[in-house]
Amino acid sequence: MTPASSILAVGSELLGTTRLDTNSLFLAGELEAIGIRVVRKACVGDDWDDLLAELAFALSRAPLLVVTGGLGPTEDDRTKEAVAAFLGRGLVRDEEILERLRERWRKRGREMPAVNAKQADVVEGAVVLPNRRGTAPGYLLEDAGRTIVLLPGVPWEMKALFTECVLPHLTRGGTPAGVHRRVLKVVGLGESAVEELVRPVYEAHREHDVTILAAAPGEVQLHFSARGTAAEASTVLDALEADFRAAVGPALFGRDDETLEGVVGRLLLDSGLTVALAESCTGGLIASRLTEVPGSSAYFLGGAVTYANAAKVAFAGVSPETLARHGAVSEEVAREMAAGARRLFGTAAGLGVTGIAGPGGGSPEKPVGTVHLALDVAEGPGRHERLVLPGDRSMVRRWTTSAALEMIRGWLIERGDAE
Amino acid sequence: MTPASSILAVGSELLGTTRLDTNSLFLAGELEAIGIRVVRKACVGDDWDDLLAELAFALSRAPLLVVTGGLGPTEDDRTKEAVAAFLGRGLVRDEEILERLRERWRKRGREMPAVNAKQADVVEGAVVLPNRRGTAPGYLLEDAGRTIVLLPGVPWEMKALFTECVLPHLTRGGTPAGVHRRVLKVVGLGESAVEELVRPVYEAHREHDVTILAAAPGEVQLHFSARGTAAEASTVLDALEADFRAAVGPALFGRDDETLEGVVGRLLLDSGLTVALAESCTGGLIASRLTEVPGSSAYFLGGAVTYANAAKVAFAGVSPETLARHGAVSEEVAREMAAGARRLFGTAAGLGVTGIAGPGGGSPEKPVGTVHLALDVAEGPGRHERLVLPGDRSMVRRWTTSAALEMIRGWLIERGDAE
Repeated sequence: MTPASSILAVGSELLGTTRLDTNSLFLAGELEAIGIRVVRKACVGDDWDDLLAELAFALSRAPLLVVTGGLGPTEDDRTKEAVAAFLGRGLVRDEEILERLRERWRKRGREMPAVNAKQADVVEGAVVLPNRRGTAPGYLLEDAGRTIVLLPGVPWEMKALFTECVLPHLTRGGTPAGVHRRVLKVVGLGESAVEELVRPVYEAHREHDVTILAAAPGEVQLHFSARGTAAEASTVLDALEADFRAAVGPALFGRDDETLEGVVGRLLLDSGLTVALAESCTGGLIASRLTEVPGSSAYFLGGAVTYANAAKVAFAGVSPETLARHGAVSEEVAREMAAGARRLFGTAAGLGVTGIAGPGGGSPEKPVGTVHLALDVAEGPGRHERLVLPGDRSMVRRWTTSAALEMIRGWLIERGDAE
Repeated sequence: MTPASSILAVGSELLGTTRLDTNSLFLAGELEAIGIRVVRKACVGDDWDDLLAELAFALSRAPLLVVTGGLGPTEDDRTKEAVAAFLGRGLVRDEEILERLRERWRKRGREMPAVNAKQADVVEGAVVLPNRRGTAPGYLLEDAGRTIVLLPGVPWEMKALFTECVLPHLTRGGTPAGVHRRVLKVVGLGESAVEELVRPVYEAHREHDVTILAAAPGEVQLHFSARGTAAEASTVLDALEADFRAAVGPALFGRDDETLEGVVGRLLLDSGLTVALAESCTGGLIASRLTEVPGSSAYFLGGAVTYANAAKVAFAGVSPETLARHGAVSEEVAREMAAGARRLFGTAAGLGVTGIAGPGGGSPEKPVGTVHLALDVAEGPGRHERLVLPGDRSMVRRWTTSAALEMIRGWLIERGDAE
């Protein structure tokens, strides 16, 4: 088992102002899961001397090197050439790869450009990793106890090649012990509030790797990792999850790939209930999050974006008197918007949101970040929450969407418990 | 003038699965603008040997090294210590920094923890760069023709330190020639359509660096760069911009930091006109883009998210007959939604959108990605567009928002021209 590895991304565009090497995030996770630490990573352009120097240095720091990019057909693509030069090996044209490339072009009714033939050149002694998603194959080379993996830079191709061809090679000695991860997601609490809640279990699990992370406005994540085989790690992670779930309580809404809108959607589907919205300061953001979920039309009937006061009266059933007496940003208006949405769309629940997202519009009594959320339901008095949120316009709006979805979730959970 | 530089980000979290070194994007732009190429960049954890090896290698590749991170108060923060060891220099406690640190803590009514005193240690001979946004100062070291800059990893602190302290040092020889950038933004055309349009001017400007980039669903960007002083580059970029604007035509909506929703908002403000929406497949996304702009309440009165067919009838004034005869995804329904939005909100224009975002709901006649957009206005027959968009649900929805904003923009431009 290789204990340490490094990652090298090749491409001058990665040294500019717009592009980052995101491939390394995927590779780090995959390598960690089979017990291989990533000790460093680097990006380099297509300069020949720079490329050779990076290869030599990377392999002096760790015996496994994963290189992405620079396998294309242009003059600037010379990862293979540099590796061949570094190892003192030749490049050989592979007739089988060449035929496959030509076939690819023929299928699209075109002749392969001569320049693409270069992609059929193989470093002597390399294992060719067939790329079913693109033209450039990957390569695996072993030399004096070191392993060099060459992968295309296109993420979609790189991921398939790594999973299908590289992982089996790296794990051929058996099921490896590695680092496995789990993420638990918490809504509506700040980082320090979550820290407070989990302190006792955190202390009890000192030997495990736990990180608390502010992931998005209104969402905090707990990141766990455990070493071992997938099965061993799973046992540890399950125990951690159980303890932290108990400590955090109902604000913990999901894990790993689950989203808050997905969780709310599933609860609505399961209960057969429907919702409608009346949004002011969020201007459609809550609706757009709900409708990110395929099939959301089964439980989300619609919403009104009532940005202007007149629209609040006309389309959310808010009375002009309430507006005049309490102002647009008030509990009363939020409650009337919620009731209006429920009545107008004929849903089980209606949610109303009004607030001051900023940068203008604040006052000493109602500073920027003041938001009123209300939920109107048939069976009871409904819910109301007043928030005073930190941050800029975008942050206030995003935090509010999480709080709104959480209000719907709270209602559904309580309703389910009561049944 | 230093011709070449490299960037090193220190922190074990940068080798994991979630965090990328985004500081390097800012640094690359700043360095390029004063004529300093970035030839490589790397990330390393807090292992002592790894850190020393990275410093030595980086300085062997370029005489200027910018290091970010590892200046905090914990045991894992040892960038300064490693640089001192690498240069064979000592660390000296700086009483002035120490007093400033203590003062910072006192102001918050707290005693400085003993561990923070470490942040007052300075590598012998280093220039201290005061950090007005945080606790850890930056440092600048010169040694045998090489320059090492140490900056905190927090972007907000790092940027201020670089701009205020490092740039003046690097440019002390005079106004330097460097690489300056400009971005032009195009909506509603694919990458290859833009390529086709600009080919003649592209050929005429072969000596300049021009890149065409698919930036977001529905948006293509042209990236230009030019060498010289800021003034020299500006002349070149202005000429490039004029030629490419002429070649692309009206689909070119803005440059650099301008957004499509911002441009549409400004046109609406200037004309004193108002809009309202009726959205189906985009489920509030168009409204949320319009309302990202502060002050949008002046021209965006509201919208209806009519996800269910019943809602299209009740809140967008679509007739049940039209729905029955043409189906929810049709030109007729889009036009009735647009007219309904305009009538209900009393705006100058109403925009209606209906489509199939997927993954379900497609048919041979109306495949997933089919979208109808319509704009209803008082002064004429309005507009309609049928799109068949590629990609998944998220892509179709995002592309549609750009097409919708572009439809409003097209109307406003034509109206302005007619006046």
